[in-house]
Amino acid sequence: MAIITLTTDFGLKDHFVGALKGSIYKELSDAKIVDISHNISPFNIQECAYILENSYKNFPEGSVHIVGVDSEPTPENQHIAVLVDGHFFVSANNGVIGLITSEFKPEKVVQINIPNPENGSFPVMDVFVKVACHIARGGTLDVVGKSFDDLKDLRGFSPTVTDNGKKIIGSVIYIDNYGNVVTNIHKKFFEAYRKGRNFELNARTTKIHRIYNKYSDIINFNVEKGKRKGAGDLMALFNAAEYIELAIYKSDLNTVGGASTLLGLDYRDAVTINFE
Amino acid sequence: MAIITLTTDFGLKDHFVGALKGSIYKELSDAKIVDISHNISPFNIQECAYILENSYKNFPEGSVHIVGVDSEPTPENQHIAVLVDGHFFVSANNGVIGLITSEFKPEKVVQINIPNPENGSFPVMDVFVKVACHIARGGTLDVVGKSFDDLKDLRGFSPTVTDNGKKIIGSVIYIDNYGNVVTNIHKKFFEAYRKGRNFELNARTTKIHRIYNKYSDIINFNVEKGKRKGAGDLMALFNAAEYIELAIYKSDLNTVGGASTLLGLDYRDAVTINFE
Amino acid sequence: MAIITLTTDFGLKDHFVGALKGSIYKELSDAKIVDISHNISPFNIQECAYILENSYKNFPEGSVHIVGVDSEPTPENQHIAVLVDGHFFVSANNGVIGLITSEFKPEKVVQINIPNPENGSFPVMDVFVKVACHIARGGTLDVVGKSFDDLKDLRGFSPTVTDNGKKIIGSVIYIDNYGNVVTNIHKKFFEAYRKGRNFELNARTTKIHRIYNKYSDIINFNVEKGKRKGAGDLMALFNAAEYIELAIYKSDLNTVGGASTLLGLDYRDAVTINFE
Repeated sequence: MAIITLTTDFGLKDHFVGALKGSIYKELSDAKIVDISHNISPFNIQECAYILENSYKNFPEGSVHIVGVDSEPTPENQHIAVLVDGHFFVSANNGVIGLITSEFKPEKVVQINIPNPENGSFPVMDVFVKVACHIARGGTLDVVGKSFDDLKDLRGFSPTVTDNGKKIIGSVIYIDNYGNVVTNIHKKFFEAYRKGRNFELNARTTKIHRIYNKYSDIINFNVEKGKRKGAGDLMALFNAAEYIELAIYKSDLNTVGGASTLLGLDYRDAVTINFE
Repeated sequence: MAIITLTTDFGLKDHFVGALKGSIYKELSDAKIVDISHNISPFNIQECAYILENSYKNFPEGSVHIVGVDSEPTPENQHIAVLVDGHFFVSANNGVIGLITSEFKPEKVVQINIPNPENGSFPVMDVFVKVACHIARGGTLDVVGKSFDDLKDLRGFSPTVTDNGKKIIGSVIYIDNYGNVVTNIHKKFFEAYRKGRNFELNARTTKIHRIYNKYSDIINFNVEKGKRKGAGDLMALFNAAEYIELAIYKSDLNTVGGASTLLGLDYRDAVTINFE
Repeated sequence: MAIITLTTDFGLKDHFVGALKGSIYKELSDAKIVDISHNISPFNIQECAYILENSYKNFPEGSVHIVGVDSEPTPENQHIAVLVDGHFFVSANNGVIGLITSEFKPEKVVQINIPNPENGSFPVMDVFVKVACHIARGGTLDVVGKSFDDLKDLRGFSPTVTDNGKKIIGSVIYIDNYGNVVTNIHKKFFEAYRKGRNFELNARTTKIHRIYNKYSDIINFNVEKGKRKGAGDLMALFNAAEYIELAIYKSDLNTVGGASTLLGLDYRDAVTINFE
């Protein structure tokens, strides 16, 4: 039995997540349901795309991923089911799986033809659950709907390059639980333009010239404990998802603050890199 | 094996939920546990009743629902187990399943006779888990305790009708994750008094004359994208739970705000409907 | 198949928890994963220790507990696996299981010898998952690494005793979901020094001379409902974890406030007990 994951902006207080799980179990009593996140910022497609991209690939192939963000069907927001990189996604056509389909060519995309109830506003439960359970049982996408070739890209996510390749203009796509600031500049993208040159990363008035691989890399453990530097300093690193991240080692937004509060950086703010 | 669901005001940080699940698995190693919500506002019986009503019915019949809100036993807050609408509820007698028992006559109500430990303050773990596991294993309510006929109603939830049926006085029972404002006026209740008349819904200084069925109904998709109206406007709709809800299409409390912040409406505030 | 529990400071929004679960299921398709908490305050070892101590023992023996707090390996923060009190813990050597190992002598402690990837910053996924799945499958600790005898204690947790045993100086270790203030003074510790004497508990300007066993013990249910005292009063009780807690019956931080807001008490603040 395939795993069914849930990624939504429903939050964890409302009845939506519970109702959703109940209806999955009603349809498929031995379902294996896994929460990815229910705390996506409401209707934030970019954020959802980032979280989805960095979760799905850790699941076994054949897993079915329900994406409940901006899922109300409209003439411009069709319900779709997609097979890509060995995983199934059931979502609205709003760009939310765009980070994945920009890397891997989808094997199959269909527009779901299960009708929505006239009343009520819970398509994830009324439609997505039926499709996901069908797939989890081993059913094919052909039964779900007709082939669809108008898959939307994820907009407003990628960094741009200017000055004949001397400058990358990126932006903040995510602030994580520690206040670390994740940019949209992927290691592969950075290295492709860097070509071995020195660089300066600019975030507001901060300038950074080095990118670490681990948070603790900023600490020199050969120096005696009381005399060590770097503990509260801002650093840049390639995070576990391989995006450039501005971080503080052992930060806590509720006490000492984090990179986001120190720099005053928020979602969508600019982070640039200048090559020599 | 029946599903055991959990609805509590324990929050998700403390050890209570983890401890609870551990003790269920210790009692019943192949238990299937599903979280409905652990973020009920502390001791808020009305809120819990609303969330429970709109979750339980999506689960398979025979499911066992543990309700861990205001569960400390007192002479006035007995521990009970109830079979109603094909589902089992294990809770305190504080009205929390009143929305369900006002719609469906309970098949069986018993007062739990498992003694609480003298010390310690965790009856959900010490008592409810034992009862829920007994039921999930297929045990009967008769073993759990004696018949009980003093089931409390849910107080302060229903709207009232005045002016010879010309006015419904309702109130806010819930603010959801998107800032949408849920009233206690159910579609059935509204239609029963409306009898086809025109109406005006009043929430503070706002007047509304139409109730939609879906959030996107406020948008006219035949109009060119840049010229569409309604995107930030307040609307009323029958939500997925069939209660009248004041909403904004694609709202987000952390950025553009939601209906609750726009209207300045909070839990318990009045929403009235006047019929012509 | 043993249960695998997760206790982390990852929060519930980021992709970390979802990614973690995915990689466990990839390794062990019939894993039984239980969340204890993902809302530990970032890098707060004391808080994590308190939550872990009061959760783990409710799980069946043989359960495997992954602790993802301050888990980046450094020369001073080794990765370890510990068998203690019949339970397995996979964590960094930062004192986080110190409350457990101070009560029970560990049967086995090994330093994990699975290498961390050079890049990336997600050791819980890269290392702890492999170890936990190995153990859950019935594997032994000997395969995981070599015996380790430098297990760190939990620092800054225990109360101190002064004045020839006439005074206990404790502190706040946790504020729970209801605003109740948990101190580090365990019932056993208190009784060992009390020796039947009267006492005065001091928290800021508040003096308390009695410790209850249940929240509702402060209410006299023989008195008519409207005339009862105690409902909003501060009380001390031995909580379900047997620590002294300052509480208000039916408090809610978002409305009436809780003991923490009433007293102005925060994490690490002093609470003292003077014996006659």
